[in-house]
Amino acid sequence: MEIPERELVKILKKFGEKKPAIIRGIGDDGAVVRIEDSSVVLCQDAIVEGIHFTFSYLSPYQVGKKALYVNIADVLSMGAEPLFYQVTLGIPKRIGSDSVRAIYRGMRRVGCEFGITLVGGDVVSTKTDFFIDVSMVGLLKLDTYKGRNLARERDLIGVTGYLGESAYGLLLLRSGLEGKKGQKRFVDRYRNPRPPYEIWKELIKHDITNAMMDISDGLLIDLERMMEESKKCGIIYFDKLPIPRDLKKEKLEDLALSGGEDYQFLFTFSKTKIGLLESLIKKGYKISVIGEVVSGKGVKLIKDGKAVEYKIKGYDHFTNG
Amino acid sequence: MEIPERELVKILKKFGEKKPAIIRGIGDDGAVVRIEDSSVVLCQDAIVEGIHFTFSYLSPYQVGKKALYVNIADVLSMGAEPLFYQVTLGIPKRIGSDSVRAIYRGMRRVGCEFGITLVGGDVVSTKTDFFIDVSMVGLLKLDTYKGRNLARERDLIGVTGYLGESAYGLLLLRSGLEGKKGQKRFVDRYRNPRPPYEIWKELIKHDITNAMMDISDGLLIDLERMMEESKKCGIIYFDKLPIPRDLKKEKLEDLALSGGEDYQFLFTFSKTKIGLLESLIKKGYKISVIGEVVSGKGVKLIKDGKAVEYKIKGYDHFTNG
Repeated sequence: MEIPERELVKILKKFGEKKPAIIRGIGDDGAVVRIEDSSVVLCQDAIVEGIHFTFSYLSPYQVGKKALYVNIADVLSMGAEPLFYQVTLGIPKRIGSDSVRAIYRGMRRVGCEFGITLVGGDVVSTKTDFFIDVSMVGLLKLDTYKGRNLARERDLIGVTGYLGESAYGLLLLRSGLEGKKGQKRFVDRYRNPRPPYEIWKELIKHDITNAMMDISDGLLIDLERMMEESKKCGIIYFDKLPIPRDLKKEKLEDLALSGGEDYQFLFTFSKTKIGLLESLIKKGYKISVIGEVVSGKGVKLIKDGKAVEYKIKGYDHFTNG
Repeated sequence: MEIPERELVKILKKFGEKKPAIIRGIGDDGAVVRIEDSSVVLCQDAIVEGIHFTFSYLSPYQVGKKALYVNIADVLSMGAEPLFYQVTLGIPKRIGSDSVRAIYRGMRRVGCEFGITLVGGDVVSTKTDFFIDVSMVGLLKLDTYKGRNLARERDLIGVTGYLGESAYGLLLLRSGLEGKKGQKRFVDRYRNPRPPYEIWKELIKHDITNAMMDISDGLLIDLERMMEESKKCGIIYFDKLPIPRDLKKEKLEDLALSGGEDYQFLFTFSKTKIGLLESLIKKGYKISVIGEVVSGKGVKLIKDGKAVEYKIKGYDHFTNG
């Protein structure tokens, strides 16, 4: 990178904010923040150019937004409200200071949306790889966290939004069809993977969920992870999955099962909460009840009354990368 | 990287620990920890192979230790006790799972030394660069933090340990002289840059310091940063600097002024605390009083009664990288 540290600190300070809870922000060995007696969620998730995204399909500004959304989805899915974040940028020489500024602007934009603040981090040179690694601190909103390990037998399984939108958007970009009529919504979802914060707030307000996680690698693989951590079996019904009509038309239902980066919330909830959930659905919140939790292990996908054989094809950075 | 995610999560879980303050550790979208009402220090610092270290001079185990020490030094220098950390590894194909395990072992070793616990993070593939990015949470030990911006006029300037040891160790390694008689201490300091925790505990116990930071890029550049943040001028006396005899003999005093990675603490303190500090020195804690803070700006280096012209040569990743 050709940007001297002094200039970078100036850029960084510009993107810092003053808030009562921030006792000491950017400019020191660490930040000092005030946290009231509570349970705190910590998460840290990185994205790497050429592995998780490419600048051909995302602008630096969008990449900055994505890096934050990914972490916000993690914090929310634990049942916590995000508060502060730090970011490390790894920057090879080919990335100029304009791109770096645009990345920080993208992060600040998302920061404003969710009321969270950049308090520190690092900027390092790399030889070839560009990466953004964000760590985030959130405050738990309820007495218990919402984790992957909390699915209970006889719970129902719910999911927010639509499945496969983002993967279909990426497919359109890869095929040079991003301008195709009526398909903008999918490309937008890929480029702007904002977690469904408004639905999340309702789910938390009414304390509906038991287990919760965000779908980052695909419905089947992520549900399998939840069932593994919970030591239960998840049964889902193909007909109940919120698959966009365009995907059905194109026979691309697989993208809804195994396409990554939806950043929708997958959750389980007690049957006693079904009334509450249905009232949310009536109010217009896009939530689908897609199955139930039973004893056993793994995930069973039911189509036309029969269990369907499937191969987990969820996005796995480590074998696809 | 050729390590499947499932195996990595297993490795990671093995290195997690159970503690009452950890409500939910590795294995979820984020960790949940209990933090009592207090001020919290957050920091995040990365090291990149070929920029901050090379596997020619450090084993994977030592690299893991170094990644933690760097962050611990930051948390301590803010006046906080480190508690939890998360780590993102960026791994190109050439790094095998044995090295990854050794890196986590190195981190765990240091975690045990300081009583801190790995609670999460990420593992991502990269094309060529190997990096470790650690974020850390610490609890402030006193009512006020210890930052770079808190140096006061008429404060004295102190430094722990010796200066230039680590840079001299690296020089010996680069010259193939790491086995040279009597020089082991320097190579050890480079390879094992443990911050002087025991001295730090005394400084904090007696609330001696005003401003504090760790020397990561070199005495002159780091003191200049402290003075800039504090809007003061630092005067230091060459004769009072703790420069190892071997460096003087080899006419390598410059390494003590501008050599990076000492991870000693540089601090200012009120003259009223000089008695306390001297009693610590008498007890055998290696601390040197090297100068004083006056109004003005920048750093003045005095040698034989005269101000010495010097050029800041501290390690700057962004221009040296």
